[in-house]
Amino acid sequence: MTARPAIQLKPGTHRRAMSGHPWVYSNEIGMTAEAKALAPGTIVRLLAHDGRPLGTAMFNPRTLIAARLLAAAPDAVIDRDFFVHRLERAKALRDRLYGAPHYRLIHAEADGLPGAVIDRYGDVAAMQLNSAGMDGLTETLAAALEAVLSPAAILLRNDSGARSLEGLPLETRWLKGEAHGPIEIAENGARFLADLGQGQKTGWFFDQRENRASVAALAEGHRMLDLYCYAGGFAIQAALAGAVQTTGIDRSEPALALAAKAADLNGVGKRCRFARGEVFTELERLRDGGERFGVVVADPPAFVKSKKDVGAGSRAYRKLARLSASVTAPGGFLFIASCSHNMEANAFAEEVRRGLQDAGRTGRILRRSDAAADHPVHPALPESAYLKAELLQLD
Amino acid sequence: MTARPAIQLKPGTHRRAMSGHPWVYSNEIGMTAEAKALAPGTIVRLLAHDGRPLGTAMFNPRTLIAARLLAAAPDAVIDRDFFVHRLERAKALRDRLYGAPHYRLIHAEADGLPGAVIDRYGDVAAMQLNSAGMDGLTETLAAALEAVLSPAAILLRNDSGARSLEGLPLETRWLKGEAHGPIEIAENGARFLADLGQGQKTGWFFDQRENRASVAALAEGHRMLDLYCYAGGFAIQAALAGAVQTTGIDRSEPALALAAKAADLNGVGKRCRFARGEVFTELERLRDGGERFGVVVADPPAFVKSKKDVGAGSRAYRKLARLSASVTAPGGFLFIASCSHNMEANAFAEEVRRGLQDAGRTGRILRRSDAAADHPVHPALPESAYLKAELLQLD
Repeated sequence: MTARPAIQLKPGTHRRAMSGHPWVYSNEIGMTAEAKALAPGTIVRLLAHDGRPLGTAMFNPRTLIAARLLAAAPDAVIDRDFFVHRLERAKALRDRLYGAPHYRLIHAEADGLPGAVIDRYGDVAAMQLNSAGMDGLTETLAAALEAVLSPAAILLRNDSGARSLEGLPLETRWLKGEAHGPIEIAENGARFLADLGQGQKTGWFFDQRENRASVAALAEGHRMLDLYCYAGGFAIQAALAGAVQTTGIDRSEPALALAAKAADLNGVGKRCRFARGEVFTELERLRDGGERFGVVVADPPAFVKSKKDVGAGSRAYRKLARLSASVTAPGGFLFIASCSHNMEANAFAEEVRRGLQDAGRTGRILRRSDAAADHPVHPALPESAYLKAELLQLD
Repeated sequence: MTARPAIQLKPGTHRRAMSGHPWVYSNEIGMTAEAKALAPGTIVRLLAHDGRPLGTAMFNPRTLIAARLLAAAPDAVIDRDFFVHRLERAKALRDRLYGAPHYRLIHAEADGLPGAVIDRYGDVAAMQLNSAGMDGLTETLAAALEAVLSPAAILLRNDSGARSLEGLPLETRWLKGEAHGPIEIAENGARFLADLGQGQKTGWFFDQRENRASVAALAEGHRMLDLYCYAGGFAIQAALAGAVQTTGIDRSEPALALAAKAADLNGVGKRCRFARGEVFTELERLRDGGERFGVVVADPPAFVKSKKDVGAGSRAYRKLARLSASVTAPGGFLFIASCSHNMEANAFAEEVRRGLQDAGRTGRILRRSDAAADHPVHPALPESAYLKAELLQLD
């Protein structure tokens, strides 16, 4: 058994790690020839400059975030049992939060597994491993998942952009078993269909669960427009809550087909229409045609994919707010969200305000929210709360 | 009929008002002798430097916020019908949001009535008028309230610190009728007692309604500690949701008496204990006695009463987080809130993080939230979202 390699911080850079922050940046590390030679993802002992132990970390000499802390003890054993403990803790929380086994089971740092995302669709699990360290532990993590959930199938959904930054290959494959066709899930009492192999994220946007309930609670008696509707999450819950008619727009035919099937599953197929379209074009057409909706949902893909896109992305959010407001009926409700990591919450709120101003609309913010509770946030990483949403009433 | 006085902005200061911001600061106004001579609260026509009309405003030559916009038209008639329209709009929103007529009906700027707060307790209304302009319109607003709600009683709860800043006298009196003893209200399916004449705020903290539901959803099977419990809002809802035992601590005997009565009303009196105490002292005693709770709620009064208190108040939040975390069981939940206007959300989050670190506890933020939807926020006044709260799970 070889000794675990040690990585030493530069003088004066240990404070953040000692305060419980899970990341160490590459410029804080004494990059010796030995350190540089370590394979990406190597499990290391992290030491302060004076040799004090800071914990067990996954190390990547090639990335900006060079070390991600796994445990406070410098010689923590990172084996199946280690993962079993974290998975069980995460599962107990979700089972307390939700009535059905469909949720994000592991949300990276906040659940103590940096770079790992695991979504649970009943007895099927979908994993995405976004750091070299976690990627190297794929089999151990899968064994732990087997011990905790005994899933019928485990999908490796390793097709995220984050993997490219870590120098990891992109791939989607079944680690165990295989699910054929869409999987039915329950959310807020409604039934949906998720396609794990083909869909966006791992197949379902669990992060909007609580926001969908907030919107649905206002929908009774209203016509509702669901922009970027994907597989129908907002629209179908609104229809179940009494929306007289919902129109979902998306550019993905497979997602629209799942949405239509799910509407039928919930017995609201006659009140739910799903149509392929480009949202900005459709909004202009609806506005010019005088169409107005009592509830409008605008939940777009990330307009700001990286820091250099902040300017263009901000303008896109402002435009989306303007056009969405222009088809919101007087007294109606507008829900608008950003899932861009690089769009700061107050900056997003300001673009929404400007969009309303551009549309000549006044109103009030009823609720500001982020992702559902199965997407927890590490207390030292408030910036990892990527989802920001506003629910407004317009005059 | 005399012409409405005009107030003119200095050159280059009209942009914010034109963008829909409801406030003009005193240094943006050409303070002529005529302007200075206007009685606080005079209704004025607000004009840009070039004479362009900006709207109808309430003007106070003696306050930092010198003009508060009431309407976009410079000659809007501010009469009973004007208020009836705003009250009806606000009532329709609340009636859609909630199943019972117990809510904040008017939340100042966000509901188009700067400086006015009206809480509805069924057929009793409690008003607080925090600007000279709104104070001068008391009778007109009361007449509109009569037209919209026909309340049995209207309480003027004009005892806020904000009134002193506006040079207004402090008083509590019944404008119409009178309510004798506490009033029963419904919130999230539970029953509570509010004392409008004597209690804090206007008698009930409607702003925590949604946060109480979030906490209750996690309480089943847990012991629960409710710090600054006031009239029992968090504790009783947790008990109804299955908390095995709740302990409420507050320094107000009258509030504790209402809490105990409300617990009995809800049939959970045997599981709810309410005790008088100083929270920091009690927390140290509980910690040292080894008491641990599956759910801890810390919802203190404002620790930061003005900008000069930010340092001391921040330290108090950090200490509250530390001590509250120290009595939270492993795997348990901690809800902690700040209602300080002058405590910025990210700064509060950082004090909570430090408090956890001081207590040697790790965990994850499940939910960050502000006040309930009947406390809407004006899109141009994000800083008016005074309440900030975090719900965490601790390891």
